[in-house]
Amino acid sequence: MYLFGVDIGGTCIKVVILKNSICIDKYLINTNLNYNGGNILKDVSESIIDYCMNSKIDYNLIEAIGIGVPGPVVNGVVSFCVNLNWEEKDVVKELSMLLPFDTVIGCLNDANATLYAEVNNEYNTAAILTIGTGIGGGVYINGVVEGVTGSSGEFGHIYMDNPYNFKCNCGLNNCLETVASATGICNIYRFKTNNELDCKSIFDKIEENDIIALEVLEEVCMYLGKACANIAVNFNPEVIIIGGGVSLAGDILLDGIRRYFVKYCFKSVKETKIINSTLGNDSGGIGVALYAKEKRECISKSKI
Amino acid sequence: MYLFGVDIGGTCIKVVILKNSICIDKYLINTNLNYNGGNILKDVSESIIDYCMNSKIDYNLIEAIGIGVPGPVVNGVVSFCVNLNWEEKDVVKELSMLLPFDTVIGCLNDANATLYAEVNNEYNTAAILTIGTGIGGGVYINGVVEGVTGSSGEFGHIYMDNPYNFKCNCGLNNCLETVASATGICNIYRFKTNNELDCKSIFDKIEENDIIALEVLEEVCMYLGKACANIAVNFNPEVIIIGGGVSLAGDILLDGIRRYFVKYCFKSVKETKIINSTLGNDSGGIGVALYAKEKRECISKSKI
Repeated sequence: MYLFGVDIGGTCIKVVILKNSICIDKYLINTNLNYNGGNILKDVSESIIDYCMNSKIDYNLIEAIGIGVPGPVVNGVVSFCVNLNWEEKDVVKELSMLLPFDTVIGCLNDANATLYAEVNNEYNTAAILTIGTGIGGGVYINGVVEGVTGSSGEFGHIYMDNPYNFKCNCGLNNCLETVASATGICNIYRFKTNNELDCKSIFDKIEENDIIALEVLEEVCMYLGKACANIAVNFNPEVIIIGGGVSLAGDILLDGIRRYFVKYCFKSVKETKIINSTLGNDSGGIGVALYAKEKRECISKSKI
Repeated sequence: MYLFGVDIGGTCIKVVILKNSICIDKYLINTNLNYNGGNILKDVSESIIDYCMNSKIDYNLIEAIGIGVPGPVVNGVVSFCVNLNWEEKDVVKELSMLLPFDTVIGCLNDANATLYAEVNNEYNTAAILTIGTGIGGGVYINGVVEGVTGSSGEFGHIYMDNPYNFKCNCGLNNCLETVASATGICNIYRFKTNNELDCKSIFDKIEENDIIALEVLEEVCMYLGKACANIAVNFNPEVIIIGGGVSLAGDILLDGIRRYFVKYCFKSVKETKIINSTLGNDSGGIGVALYAKEKRECISKSKI
C-alpha cells in the first residue's frame, strides 16, 4: 500500500511517496501563489495523478494522502496561511473533490507533521521547537494537539524578557523568535557589532572562537533554555525535540540549551530529555503521510 | 449510586458524598501526619465505612471513590507529597486493600481534580491556575494531562523576569509564585513599603484605593497576564480558569489579568477565555469523584 506525504511551503511543494511506511521516492513542484494560492491543491492533485500513471500505481493501492501546511489547522481546516495567500480552506474536503478516487486525506500544520514523524510511537508526550527564520513548534500528548484555533506550540511567541526590545513580525515585542531564531541570532549580533551578517556566517565565526559570536550563542542558549524550562512546567513532556535549520549547529547549541534548562527549570521536570531532531528535510511529508494513515477516516466524494 | 470524593490536605481531609452525581453531604476529618502519613488512607477508609454504616448505604451502591492529593500523581501513584510526609505511594492499590469491598478508585493531583470539576464536559481544552499561598495548576486536553512525572501545569514555576529576585520554596529564583501568589503579593508589598502585611489586609488596602497596594495589584496582574499569554501559546486552550483563594478578589484581579493578557499574547490566541473558577471549596473532592466514576476500571482485591 502507498502513502503520499505533501509538504506545502511558500516556494515549493515537497512530495514523498511511502510504500509499506518506508519512503521510496520523492519529487518537488513549484508553489503557485497566484489567484490567492487557489491552484495549489489542483497542482498537488494533478501531480499525484501523473505520478501514479507514470509509476503504474493503481489508485486502490493509495491508502492515504497527508498534507502539511505552514499555518494553523484544526480538524483538516486551515484557518489562514499567509505564506500561501490562503484564507480559511477546508483542505481535506477540497482535495477529496479534486482527486478521481476516494482515499483517506489528513492535513496538519507543518511543525505538527514533523513532530508526528519524530515521535513515531516512541514517546507519549513531546514538544518540538523548529528553529529557522522564525520559531515554530508543536505539542504531542497521546496524539498531535492542534489547539482550539490551531495555534498550539507557537513557542516562537513566548514572551522572553531581554535587553533589546526587538519588534516581532507578529506585532509584539520580545517574542522568543526575536532573540533565538536565525533572525534573532542576526539581531543580537547586529546590536553588539553594528555589522549585518547572516546566521550561517555567525556560526562560522563561532567555529573560529570569535568572542562576540560566542557571546551571542551563549545568550541564545539562555533564551532557548528558559523557553524549554517553561514548556516543561506547562505540560511536562517526556522529550523536547530541537529541529529546524539552526538545530543543524548540533551539540554546541544543544549543550548550551541543556545547561540553561537545568539552571532555570523546576526540579520535578529536570529529567525532561532535550534532543536534536533526527529526521531530515522530508520529516514533514513523512509525518503527515503517517498521520493520515492513522486517521483512517475516508471522506467519500459521494458524501460531500 | 454513590460517589465519594476525598480531598486530602495537609491539615484536614474533606470528603464529599455524591448521589447520582449531585453533592448530598460532606464531612471533615483531621490529617494525621504522624508515621510519615502512614495512617491517612486507613483513616479515609474507616471514615467511609463509618459513613456507610450510619447512613445505611449498601457497599454495592458505591460506584467509585476519588482521592485528590497535593502532589504529583501518575496513573494513581503519588511520586511524593511533602505536605503529607509521603514518598512514593500507590494510593489506588493501598486504598483498595483497606476497603472491605471492591469499587473503582481514582487518584488525581488536587489542582487537576479541581480542573476536572470546573471543565465538567463544557470544554475540550482548558488550563487552571490556582492562586493561593503558592500557584498550582492543571492542564486538560480531552482529559486531564498528568505529565510524564505528574508535573503538568506547574505554572507557579514559570520563570518570570522581575526586579526582585525573590527566592522560591523550590530553590529557584523568579518563579511566578514569588511575585503573583498570596505570598508573592506580600513579598512585593513588603519590598515597596518595608511593612509586613498579610494578603487579605493588602486587598483591604486595595479596596481603600491605597496607592501602593494598587501598584502591587497592577504589577501582579501583569505577571499573571504574561503567564496566561505564555500558557495560551503553549497549548492553545479554549479557557484559562483562575481559581484559589486569591481569585476571590474577583473582577479587580480578573480584569487586570485580561488587560495584560491581551497586551502580551500572540494574536491567534487572543480569544482565549479567562474566567474565574465557579465552584467553591468542594470542587477538588467533586472533581476527583467524577473522575473516578469516568475511569470505570475497578481493581479487585482478589487481583492485587
